[in-house]
Amino acid sequence: MTRPMSSIDPIPHLRRVHETAPLIHNITNFVAMNAMANVLLAIGASPAMVHAREEAAEFAGLAQALTINIGTLSPHWVDAMLEAARAANAVSTPWVMDPVAVGATHYRRQTAKQLIELSPSVIRGNASEIIALAGQSSTGRGVDSTDAYDDAIDSALQLARQTGAVVAVTGEQDLVTDGQRLVRVAGGHPLMPKVTTLGCSLTGVVAAFIAAAEDTLAATVAALCCYATAGELAGGEAKGPGSFAVAFIDALHALDAQALEGRHLDIEHV
Amino acid sequence: MTRPMSSIDPIPHLRRVHETAPLIHNITNFVAMNAMANVLLAIGASPAMVHAREEAAEFAGLAQALTINIGTLSPHWVDAMLEAARAANAVSTPWVMDPVAVGATHYRRQTAKQLIELSPSVIRGNASEIIALAGQSSTGRGVDSTDAYDDAIDSALQLARQTGAVVAVTGEQDLVTDGQRLVRVAGGHPLMPKVTTLGCSLTGVVAAFIAAAEDTLAATVAALCCYATAGELAGGEAKGPGSFAVAFIDALHALDAQALEGRHLDIEHV
Amino acid sequence: MTRPMSSIDPIPHLRRVHETAPLIHNITNFVAMNAMANVLLAIGASPAMVHAREEAAEFAGLAQALTINIGTLSPHWVDAMLEAARAANAVSTPWVMDPVAVGATHYRRQTAKQLIELSPSVIRGNASEIIALAGQSSTGRGVDSTDAYDDAIDSALQLARQTGAVVAVTGEQDLVTDGQRLVRVAGGHPLMPKVTTLGCSLTGVVAAFIAAAEDTLAATVAALCCYATAGELAGGEAKGPGSFAVAFIDALHALDAQALEGRHLDIEHV
Repeated sequence: MTRPMSSIDPIPHLRRVHETAPLIHNITNFVAMNAMANVLLAIGASPAMVHAREEAAEFAGLAQALTINIGTLSPHWVDAMLEAARAANAVSTPWVMDPVAVGATHYRRQTAKQLIELSPSVIRGNASEIIALAGQSSTGRGVDSTDAYDDAIDSALQLARQTGAVVAVTGEQDLVTDGQRLVRVAGGHPLMPKVTTLGCSLTGVVAAFIAAAEDTLAATVAALCCYATAGELAGGEAKGPGSFAVAFIDALHALDAQALEGRHLDIEHV
Repeated sequence: MTRPMSSIDPIPHLRRVHETAPLIHNITNFVAMNAMANVLLAIGASPAMVHAREEAAEFAGLAQALTINIGTLSPHWVDAMLEAARAANAVSTPWVMDPVAVGATHYRRQTAKQLIELSPSVIRGNASEIIALAGQSSTGRGVDSTDAYDDAIDSALQLARQTGAVVAVTGEQDLVTDGQRLVRVAGGHPLMPKVTTLGCSLTGVVAAFIAAAEDTLAATVAALCCYATAGELAGGEAKGPGSFAVAFIDALHALDAQALEGRHLDIEHV
Repeated sequence: MTRPMSSIDPIPHLRRVHETAPLIHNITNFVAMNAMANVLLAIGASPAMVHAREEAAEFAGLAQALTINIGTLSPHWVDAMLEAARAANAVSTPWVMDPVAVGATHYRRQTAKQLIELSPSVIRGNASEIIALAGQSSTGRGVDSTDAYDDAIDSALQLARQTGAVVAVTGEQDLVTDGQRLVRVAGGHPLMPKVTTLGCSLTGVVAAFIAAAEDTLAATVAALCCYATAGELAGGEAKGPGSFAVAFIDALHALDAQALEGRHLDIEHV
């Protein structure tokens, strides 16, 4: 039986990352840097963390994709974020925005607003962050989501339509939309939110997948599917969040076509 | 046989942390950030690292407790630390001070002095740091303690009486005092000082325990007891500091009333 | 059969590090800080990360060796790097320079040039970095080396002769030279480049080994040999880069004369 065209097979996407080993430029928060670099190496990409205004724009021109994460802000960094996003746009390098805890402070909302104006290719956040970014009120208080998945669907659609970005809401279940198409990605493991910055690191994986992709939505979905699959495999090995984090890196590194066999993701048209 | 009133049972304290999942705002050093976030998630709290002057005070008002760690200072950060401490005080949010390597440089001594004037609820350090902070001379040269536990008792009592803070001296043995009561906490494992920032991360755990506590000394003692117990459990699994760090997170996450059964801590009146 | 004088035995060097537990002052990048501290603790040194201009020079005077890593730059940090290097020189404290991704941006090349003028005792980089630093063109695009080991030999010799530093090129094979002597160090494990900042952390280990050494080249070679040996031991335990990183710390911590038995490194005169 032939799969309908309206589904996404993650395997060719993972193969492309393995073959191209894209250089991913990350301006990310201090908490995530090390974990994110290890995740990117494990999936087959080449990570670089470069945040100084003095070089961020120059470096953005060298990379195959850029990520910008507002988790730990300061004025010098915000300047570098904006310059790096502009530099990436100037050479048509895709970039992913991660609006960590955007609802929590005025400074975050303001910075996120400036970044969104620079046309991110993908916005990836948890339900609370996407709801806050779409201008709905959210009860999100810190970096952990306090909103339900279903409540984020409307916000995600609205945000995608407003910005032209692919919007990915990740959590217990994931949801990706470009405003016309919507894909749900199940899987993962309950220990994933117990390991810090796994969400931030996923932003890097999305960047690695969209770096040379023709269809940003499909590549984003494939990234999320690979991540969830590695999470399931790691969950089978782990005794708690410490051993889960270790097994997760091993699983990402070992991920191949066999592990992804049959994991086609259906596209809904909305 | 009834336990005397003058002992502390850590079990209800751990239960409170599990039930309230307090949001802990940390201005901590770059080395500790990731490890501390994982420790806080493992114990059941919700960590956030927010250090910019532009948002630290605002965020301090959202959190249930705040930690300030002087491990990696810079002027912008010191400003944010002072503003966050003032904001926490304004809404009666408890905060914990971690005077990393306070004896090593003039800049650290000066910053610690400014912070102490803002009335931390708890000061947690190793023996060398507490001795230096109390104004005694210490041989502490770096971030690792070079002073003995016994030498720190007088300094801890003096510091508690001067500042009104609960003072916790941690190391091979731990000691907690509010100037009137003194509690010793044994346990832990020799590999603990071989894993970086376990002390810094403990500061976060103390914050999680005092967040909604009536008795700050008792909550601090309970935090230290939970940490030491997890250390013992991890020590039984570990082959070295690498596997210890992993097993420690697993043990913190699995910690429950059964693991703490019978670990009452006696209070001495001094 | 007596070994020729022209070989290096790593065992007395490791013993010296264990006996002296040198305090190593690191101005390193955000990605490496935690991993490097754990590596230094595992090898028996005492790490401290101190980067503020307000205290870096003062702290450099307390340490037994200093490392400066340009992985994540900003102006305030560059000032502190220069002041720390000058302070180390003033009291004849050896220091190691790590020119991360020096070929990637103008800002890195400029900073590296200023640092080299302050006479590092050792320069440790991958092949692409050493080639770029010696003024040859390199294809290095990010933080990962894209140049072959053999291409770096001439650059390493030239850089050592120009600067008076010991130059260490690390990668699949390692190479150390002071311009007259050249030593090759084999070993390690293919998973090592899949764990982020293992190179940065090695810079710290080199600092720990040269801290009280009479012969900087021999101490550097010994550091690299210990690292490679621990890598081999960890490789035997690992299922992927996650478990490799854990096993590597355990192996470094357990490293002793027995593990290094017979690993003499031959000196070539060039």
